Amino acid sequence: MLEIPESYQRIVLAARPRGPVAAENFRLETMPVPQLADGEVLIRNHYLSLDPYMRGRMSKAASYAASQALEETMIGGTVGQVVASRNEFYKVGDYVNGMLGWAEMGVSDGLLLRKLDTTRIPLSAFLGVVGMPGMAAWYGFNQIMEAAAGETIIVSAASGAVGSVVGQLARLRGCRVVGIAGGPEKCGYVVNELGFDACVDYKAGNLEADLAAATPDGVDAIFENVGGACLDAALGRTNAFARVALCGLIGGFNGADMSIKNARALLLNRLTLRGFIITEHMEYWQQGLQELAVLVANRQIKYRESVADGLAAAPEAFMGLLHGRNFGKQLVKLI
Amino acid sequence: MLEIPESYQRIVLAARPRGPVAAENFRLETMPVPQLADGEVLIRNHYLSLDPYMRGRMSKAASYAASQALEETMIGGTVGQVVASRNEFYKVGDYVNGMLGWAEMGVSDGLLLRKLDTTRIPLSAFLGVVGMPGMAAWYGFNQIMEAAAGETIIVSAASGAVGSVVGQLARLRGCRVVGIAGGPEKCGYVVNELGFDACVDYKAGNLEADLAAATPDGVDAIFENVGGACLDAALGRTNAFARVALCGLIGGFNGADMSIKNARALLLNRLTLRGFIITEHMEYWQQGLQELAVLVANRQIKYRESVADGLAAAPEAFMGLLHGRNFGKQLVKLI
Repeated sequence: MLEIPESYQRIVLAARPRGPVAAENFRLETMPVPQLADGEVLIRNHYLSLDPYMRGRMSKAASYAASQALEETMIGGTVGQVVASRNEFYKVGDYVNGMLGWAEMGVSDGLLLRKLDTTRIPLSAFLGVVGMPGMAAWYGFNQIMEAAAGETIIVSAASGAVGSVVGQLARLRGCRVVGIAGGPEKCGYVVNELGFDACVDYKAGNLEADLAAATPDGVDAIFENVGGACLDAALGRTNAFARVALCGLIGGFNGADMSIKNARALLLNRLTLRGFIITEHMEYWQQGLQELAVLVANRQIKYRESVADGLAAAPEAFMGLLHGRNFGKQLVKLI
Repeated sequence: MLEIPESYQRIVLAARPRGPVAAENFRLETMPVPQLADGEVLIRNHYLSLDPYMRGRMSKAASYAASQALEETMIGGTVGQVVASRNEFYKVGDYVNGMLGWAEMGVSDGLLLRKLDTTRIPLSAFLGVVGMPGMAAWYGFNQIMEAAAGETIIVSAASGAVGSVVGQLARLRGCRVVGIAGGPEKCGYVVNELGFDACVDYKAGNLEADLAAATPDGVDAIFENVGGACLDAALGRTNAFARVALCGLIGGFNGADMSIKNARALLLNRLTLRGFIITEHMEYWQQGLQELAVLVANRQIKYRESVADGLAAAPEAFMGLLHGRNFGKQLVKLI
């Protein structure tokens, strides 16, 4: 038997942001633990994942997914442990991954849960390198960038949950890997710990020149998480027939201009650019997650986490993520 | 025997443009007709094709192809007739397509010529709908847009040599076809003669609203010849997973801002955008040109030409093309 609290905390969307996300957009609430219906399981969440896509959901602007409803639990991926079950497949004590939101506990009918084998992989990694961010990296790298050994790739937000995996997958394939990250600490980590060939600090103010110096043979594929000046600088280095996997435009969340000024490169260099949302390519998840799990278990892929302590710390951690203050995968430890 | 003049005229690049192309960038010269070496043919050009790509070649800026050399005959596609031959395959009187440039005559070893069957298709059409512009349309439509019956497409420069073919191919497939063109006369032609479902006049000043009204079900594929505001407006109408064939950015030749301001649509709508240069896809030309020839011979595809009279008129006609003053495929009649 695992201990079941009588109540739990959650965070709801209290108001949509006007301008940057602020603490008053969120509200912490205490909720009674619900009774289970037949087929349901009760889960105590250990970690909540914070991801850039949540920012888009907070707005009412048209997006690929429905907006986050006001006064409802903020959307979010979680890993935790089954503490009560009326479902045959899930037993008390099982570790599971689900989308239970910014909440210490949640109820599920099990259909959208994934049972986790934590014997060789830490529970939190299933929210990062062996979860959605890892899959975004795996899909963009394998299905869009299609970079061969000897080719050069550029990855923006290189120390982040997605970019760090893209670069390491590319390094394992024999590519020359150049990251873009903010600040010398992140850039040092990207080169010294993750094994990128180079990492350009966009905060140093010489993005174009530094990127040119780091890519003497030009660039054959780009994994874009940021947009704006990062993307333009990378486009300026493209060789003919280069591929661009457009995974995110996180730079735009803070109001920066996300225009692609270098549209000319798209035509002159005959580029292929594809935007994608990893949850629309579930047919690749089993294969991708298995490959990533093997690489993590064998320590061929490293990862780093920023862990905020307790649900109440989630809003501040999320705002930090949008400003690049996290270092590696941003999590909230709930228990 | 066909008459062979003793001299011919050509136009060379006299100076690279600073700002817009001007008459003084060109110089008309009289040349002696050369003697043929073994294996060569002498061709009298009947029509010269004027195309936007020539503008790029006039600059020294890095491009996918070498710059046009100063003091050399301006590059250009031609159709004409063999007037003397020391080549077994080509006989005097044969009609041929080649790249003999802005010149009344030219010599070729035959390797890059194409013999033309003019029994059902007028000679000039081999520079347009059954030539390079037609192939650009065919390739972009079939290999990048991949639009199915019932889908909506947008084509910019819709009355032009490329856009007009894209729209008619799409109409034959059963797509809803919306053009963008400059002025009521071109728009009327696109709808009434070419059979597009609608055509938006970008000069009317309501591009976004007019395009929205013409695409009530959104847009599934875009064929882009212009760039800038045209492309942004089209991107703003895209449905999920829409495809963008980027064939040209002619708007940029006159110094307009070609930034893609709507980069967000690329991600949110999971678009695939691909720039292409039709001469790099020669493996499709035989199939494409045959299909286009049948459609033209059967009058299932219509086309329109702007014909300037005499080589000396070429520079002015070319400047007009860059400003959209042509109406349909721009040619120069040389004989």
